[in-house]
Amino acid sequence: MIEQHKFELMDAEQLTLKLIEAQYTLKNSRGTDHAKSLVVIVSGIELAGKGEAVKQLREWLDPRYLQVKADIPNLFTQKQSFWQPYAPFIPAEGEIQIMFGNWYSDLLATANHVSEPFDVYLFDDYVERMRAFEQDLKNNHCDVIKIWFDLSWKSLQKRLDHLAPAEQRWHKLHGLNWRNKKQYDNLQRLRQRFTRDWIIIDCEDAAVRDQKFAQYVLQALRHLPKHYENGADLWQQAQIPEALLHPRHAPTDQADYKKRLKKLTNKVAAALRNDQRRIIICFEGMDAAGKGGAIKRIVKKLDPREYSIFTISAPEKFQLRHPYLWRFWNNLQDKSNILIFDRTWYGRVLVERVEGFATAKQWQRAYAEINRFEKDLSDNQTLLIKFWLAISKDEQALRFQSREQTAHKRFKITDEDRRNRSKWPEYLDAAADMLALTDTDYAPWHVIATDDKYTARLEILTAILAQLLAADG
Amino acid sequence: MIEQHKFELMDAEQLTLKLIEAQYTLKNSRGTDHAKSLVVIVSGIELAGKGEAVKQLREWLDPRYLQVKADIPNLFTQKQSFWQPYAPFIPAEGEIQIMFGNWYSDLLATANHVSEPFDVYLFDDYVERMRAFEQDLKNNHCDVIKIWFDLSWKSLQKRLDHLAPAEQRWHKLHGLNWRNKKQYDNLQRLRQRFTRDWIIIDCEDAAVRDQKFAQYVLQALRHLPKHYENGADLWQQAQIPEALLHPRHAPTDQADYKKRLKKLTNKVAAALRNDQRRIIICFEGMDAAGKGGAIKRIVKKLDPREYSIFTISAPEKFQLRHPYLWRFWNNLQDKSNILIFDRTWYGRVLVERVEGFATAKQWQRAYAEINRFEKDLSDNQTLLIKFWLAISKDEQALRFQSREQTAHKRFKITDEDRRNRSKWPEYLDAAADMLALTDTDYAPWHVIATDDKYTARLEILTAILAQLLAADG
Repeated sequence: MIEQHKFELMDAEQLTLKLIEAQYTLKNSRGTDHAKSLVVIVSGIELAGKGEAVKQLREWLDPRYLQVKADIPNLFTQKQSFWQPYAPFIPAEGEIQIMFGNWYSDLLATANHVSEPFDVYLFDDYVERMRAFEQDLKNNHCDVIKIWFDLSWKSLQKRLDHLAPAEQRWHKLHGLNWRNKKQYDNLQRLRQRFTRDWIIIDCEDAAVRDQKFAQYVLQALRHLPKHYENGADLWQQAQIPEALLHPRHAPTDQADYKKRLKKLTNKVAAALRNDQRRIIICFEGMDAAGKGGAIKRIVKKLDPREYSIFTISAPEKFQLRHPYLWRFWNNLQDKSNILIFDRTWYGRVLVERVEGFATAKQWQRAYAEINRFEKDLSDNQTLLIKFWLAISKDEQALRFQSREQTAHKRFKITDEDRRNRSKWPEYLDAAADMLALTDTDYAPWHVIATDDKYTARLEILTAILAQLLAADG
Repeated sequence: MIEQHKFELMDAEQLTLKLIEAQYTLKNSRGTDHAKSLVVIVSGIELAGKGEAVKQLREWLDPRYLQVKADIPNLFTQKQSFWQPYAPFIPAEGEIQIMFGNWYSDLLATANHVSEPFDVYLFDDYVERMRAFEQDLKNNHCDVIKIWFDLSWKSLQKRLDHLAPAEQRWHKLHGLNWRNKKQYDNLQRLRQRFTRDWIIIDCEDAAVRDQKFAQYVLQALRHLPKHYENGADLWQQAQIPEALLHPRHAPTDQADYKKRLKKLTNKVAAALRNDQRRIIICFEGMDAAGKGGAIKRIVKKLDPREYSIFTISAPEKFQLRHPYLWRFWNNLQDKSNILIFDRTWYGRVLVERVEGFATAKQWQRAYAEINRFEKDLSDNQTLLIKFWLAISKDEQALRFQSREQTAHKRFKITDEDRRNRSKWPEYLDAAADMLALTDTDYAPWHVIATDDKYTARLEILTAILAQLLAADG
């Protein structure tokens, strides 16, 4: 926690020198074991001077490595999570992002705009989820500090008295009626529900305000702790479910397979098309388990304008400089109502765990992070349908063999696949933990045995249909 | 041009093998002198089966390096250029992007939706600008092929007869009434205004359709010509204007400087705030010419929620894999109405030209590309205000010296700056060409002498005000 006492005005030259040094140290941390990025969340009373303080900071720092995001508030619509409008702006290692507009300013704007009083429990619930989201950012080396620019009622009124009429109008547009004491008091009450862990800057004096702000940022910039990456001493490995160890081989009667498939395909297409929610269908499973084939059947009767498919491979270098969920946040910016993922964010606890791309601490933490991520989506009119396609090692061998024999399928088998195959038990362990720790009410897993691919296809479609119709669709 | 005759059905195994080989060759071209990306624009008559053909192609290719964009149409609003919704999806070297939704489908949808008949001259003007945009993409190693899926009136009616009612409703939602012969004929007439340079696929037969589509894509994938980068034999260097050779030093009376500055700052803020257009203010100039100081005065009376500042430095590696304007297209996604650029896309014809980061061919071509880019913006309710800040070499030396003496400003002078300084004549040549070739009616340059920075600030604000009030603001 940043210390709030012992404040002293510094020589401005000294301060800017230190800020720039710290900024360059941050920038040069990229790729090291103490790399981080910094989000500065800024909110406060209108006319307290947060804009001026940000402008001053921009002059004291090198503006090339400092972004300022400052849109007018997004009112909460229940159609996207509070973090969604901001996700693309979560900075990369070495960068600083000032969030003048942020999830708290959106929360305050929403609470003040809804006609009925905003339920305080709902308000507190939002705050709790925001804090959890920020903690996840911090754990992923994106530091967050939050600064509230405060101003007393008396000073606010005095400043309003001296404001040009044109400006008065503009400030009113973007908030409350600041002449109304009741509204002011209400806002102060509301913000106290979340500013417990904020830095509060009293903005009576402009010079003190700008310096305090800059000094807090400086303190945060200088804090570049080494990544602490040890895992739990004792990791409680989940038992591997029977369904993964010995996937059923349940042949389908070929006579009516085609008829049933066609009927199901039509039903699934209609149910997907008519659902008002956003649908996210996720596929994970060993190689050659049939993810591609399943996706093909799901979209069979849909038009490409109705869905998007994301085929996930190893992250690019620039993506690795962000929290690992970042690239999926960006995928969610897609406008389609139906999103299908061929491999997903669960890569963190599967391939990244097994191959050592994530540290023990990182993958062990990821279960809770992913659960929160999916909960946020599910709370915002999104239905998650998740599949683990279980294949036996023997059946995989047969499929690899048949691919080897087909020239154009050979590209699908890489040395990587063969390596993965040699780590079969580790992948089963990883899948077992994933199923045990992320099978939630709001985003349950479907484990489908795929040794018989015909049965698997029918079961996948049936499961999608059931989940679409079960929830309040 | 792709040959449209001599079509033969290929063995599907052979075709997919060739497609995947070509796709991997494309992918491996990244970073070489024959690298490219491929955009496949897909449109056509409803039910012709373009969706099926795209799905089939997705199965024949490796889906990890193939993106499909297929939103429902964006109607043209005059608030953004036709390419703006698609700009973020222009693929990086080595990638393939299928644009199932694209600027042509938007054009057709707009022409069919507006209540009054869409003027054919306006239609043709759009088509011309689309072709110019595509040519710019091609020149920047992003190849474009366009494929129209055609279907006769008779076949369309037959397919509608066999469509389930639910599907019929959905298809109707996304286009015309396909039972209306007049609408069908009208669409065919309209599309013929742009399909001259398209590949037309007759979709009577599904197998032929899918193969033709895949074969055309294959042909495009295989075409990986070496980048041809020789410049013009004789480049007509513009004469360096007097204003650049000898920037005036016109001292401002310090007595009323502050008063005038304050008044202008207020006026500019009010004019910017009240303008209904989008405003883009661009700064270019030698180092230490005062770009930062000018920006500071422009935003002085604005709130950060009203503007965004982009401080442009050298592109990142992943940005270099796209056309050079791509990162600026992305900046334009910003929601602010006032965008300020501290350095701009003119880097292509300034630093990239002088330092050799762009080939002669590239920077020579860029003037026309930039003009088209700015024309498109200006045609869509955007006002461009461009400044070249002219400083004398002596004054720059003085400012560098004073920076050297101020610890916190030392970071602003790098070896690069000193190198730039040694190429002063080359930068003046580059600036001269830029001013000669990109000073347009719709986006004129203001050359401001900055040896006296007080005068410069007043002149910049005055110029902004004048341009805001001059045009039909």
